[in-house]
Amino acid sequence: MAERCVLVGQSGGPTAAINASLAGVIAAGILEGARVEGMRYGIQGFLDGRSVRLDEAFVSRVDLDLLRNTPASWLGSCRFKLPALGTDDTVYQRLFERFEELGASAVLYIGGNDSMDTISKLAAYGQSTGSDIRFIGVPKTIDNDLVGTDHTPGYGSAARFVATAMNELAYDADVYNLKSVTFVEIMGRDAGWLTASSALAFVEPDLVLLPEVPLNEDALIERLSQALQKKNTVMVGVSEGVRTPDGALVCERAAAPGVGTDEFGHLAMLSGAGRYLAALTKERIGCKTRAVELSTLQRCASYVASRTDLNEAYDVGYAAVEAAFAGETAKMCAIERVSNDPYASRTKLVDVAAVANQVRNIPSEWISADGMGIGSELRAYIRPLIGELPAQLASLD
Amino acid sequence: MAERCVLVGQSGGPTAAINASLAGVIAAGILEGARVEGMRYGIQGFLDGRSVRLDEAFVSRVDLDLLRNTPASWLGSCRFKLPALGTDDTVYQRLFERFEELGASAVLYIGGNDSMDTISKLAAYGQSTGSDIRFIGVPKTIDNDLVGTDHTPGYGSAARFVATAMNELAYDADVYNLKSVTFVEIMGRDAGWLTASSALAFVEPDLVLLPEVPLNEDALIERLSQALQKKNTVMVGVSEGVRTPDGALVCERAAAPGVGTDEFGHLAMLSGAGRYLAALTKERIGCKTRAVELSTLQRCASYVASRTDLNEAYDVGYAAVEAAFAGETAKMCAIERVSNDPYASRTKLVDVAAVANQVRNIPSEWISADGMGIGSELRAYIRPLIGELPAQLASLD
Repeated sequence: MAERCVLVGQSGGPTAAINASLAGVIAAGILEGARVEGMRYGIQGFLDGRSVRLDEAFVSRVDLDLLRNTPASWLGSCRFKLPALGTDDTVYQRLFERFEELGASAVLYIGGNDSMDTISKLAAYGQSTGSDIRFIGVPKTIDNDLVGTDHTPGYGSAARFVATAMNELAYDADVYNLKSVTFVEIMGRDAGWLTASSALAFVEPDLVLLPEVPLNEDALIERLSQALQKKNTVMVGVSEGVRTPDGALVCERAAAPGVGTDEFGHLAMLSGAGRYLAALTKERIGCKTRAVELSTLQRCASYVASRTDLNEAYDVGYAAVEAAFAGETAKMCAIERVSNDPYASRTKLVDVAAVANQVRNIPSEWISADGMGIGSELRAYIRPLIGELPAQLASLD
Repeated sequence: MAERCVLVGQSGGPTAAINASLAGVIAAGILEGARVEGMRYGIQGFLDGRSVRLDEAFVSRVDLDLLRNTPASWLGSCRFKLPALGTDDTVYQRLFERFEELGASAVLYIGGNDSMDTISKLAAYGQSTGSDIRFIGVPKTIDNDLVGTDHTPGYGSAARFVATAMNELAYDADVYNLKSVTFVEIMGRDAGWLTASSALAFVEPDLVLLPEVPLNEDALIERLSQALQKKNTVMVGVSEGVRTPDGALVCERAAAPGVGTDEFGHLAMLSGAGRYLAALTKERIGCKTRAVELSTLQRCASYVASRTDLNEAYDVGYAAVEAAFAGETAKMCAIERVSNDPYASRTKLVDVAAVANQVRNIPSEWISADGMGIGSELRAYIRPLIGELPAQLASLD
């Protein structure tokens, strides 16, 4: 039997858990006695001839545990979409030549939507040319918007960061004896899963504004005014992708007349939904407002990573290698939730073609009736993914 | 002997460790058999009649350990400067009336520069009127800019957050195969201690720009260009307070002609030194640039707090109560570094009048010769204060 070789790449945006999946792939490859090769900078770097040996030579000098706890894409990443099948086969031909040169028997790609599209197309092209290389997708995205899996690796850690940061910011905002509204802007242009996790802070935010629900500015201001009558400090988790009822992104309304100009009538320094809503609230209610962007820390904060997330990320990488060597192809290695309390999950295979280019939004029945919060089912869904949060002392009043 | 009473307040900006000092004060008060009262919202709330009993009644329903691990000012804070002595005694008279009403035998104030000023003035006023109330200051500031103490509680935790975040952001910035410069903007308008801590990231930043050193833009661009010739990803820690040679704040240059306008000639959405320098670098070098503001998370991130910091914050609170009951007044309870390796410290008392209204900057001999980095002494000074950082895997190249 010829030597077996696993070729693995990482794609799309960084997460705190994507290297745990890579560690799972390497560990499974080594235990299967296979050679493990990594694409440097994904498909794109690989097309430029960049790959790196990941088993013996590599493993002798590194610790897979270190890799597991290292954030972002250790192999490097790219944003590269393969052309539609049948339009231009040149790229496919070059890729398959490189696969053959390396002797790849399995090709794994760790990423989100676009990466599943890549695996789907490569598998279809391989099938059409009679190649016996297997193609398996390994899910990864902080957005948690892939279909076919209960949730995605990377989400739990990002959600843990968001819930934790939301909590710290609530304590911070509450120290002075004055009325204030703080908008914390959270990643997720199309799906609100990550924004929803802000509701799991120990000091719960008053409102959660999701991209799934069109934002009514008057209703928002009304709710904020009511909240400010009862308490000093109002916290709002807001998705960067929240939209007005006419479908416009709120973050693009920064330059709207009347809002977003400073006291001199200059265009204020606004960007993002949080800053826009802070300016709107200041104008309409007159209280102190603050906008905090969680920035890229929310996708790469490994110091607050969820253990469950890292374990599952490792598991899907490991299981993807086993699936490929068991003869599977054109599949994504997904996560199935077996039990919620106590939490338990296992890996399963789903057709990657059914995953590619789909977006999974929060079901409307998991969003509160007023559209500005989340229901108990969604809370129960998120809780085990982020794990236990440290206890703190409730505020004085 | 009359019942003894400790009155404690918190002032100024939140930190991750200021409640640990409060926990130390409460614990010491209880063990001394004293009543412990807290000012709600500092001197200002106290003047409005707001105080809260913190011993028995309170302790029965809370855990001091929880308080110790809770970020920001649990009692609430204020920014309130007492008038100069001899100009208007009304406020002093009202405060001392309230002290007497409560039966306070010791008044402790946890805060930074302004709080030490408050303690100094109260002690002087008390002495002039023959009061036997003792006044002790408990230091707290993420800026680490108080004189008379080796370092300030709150600094170690904020510095740990900054070093950790800088590291995660370096991994995040390095995933794509392109040249980029990331500016991470860090708090500290006048002193660069917190910015300096970014140099302790496992993936060390290439440059650290401190408020102590005037920024030469040409020299900066030259250094960045050199660094980009050797590597893809250049990281810069930059103080929000960095200034040009003519003394202007860089963050106020956002609207300078030529820099800070977008492709349509509009005033770009800039604020802060990081955004300004990112725009400047993009214009002068043409590479991808990014500005990240660590925002208020850097002062309140208790999930990444330094254990050493929390322990020392607790200790100075505890020792302040003991000092007051031993008859000391007009003092600040400072930290003395006994040994650096292994690290050991102890509390000591210093005259609070010598601390108030002074700013301690980084000594010039601790800054690298080119003014864009820190020396080994400063590194050795910071390291034990932030504690061990988790190990991660170095990048591939």
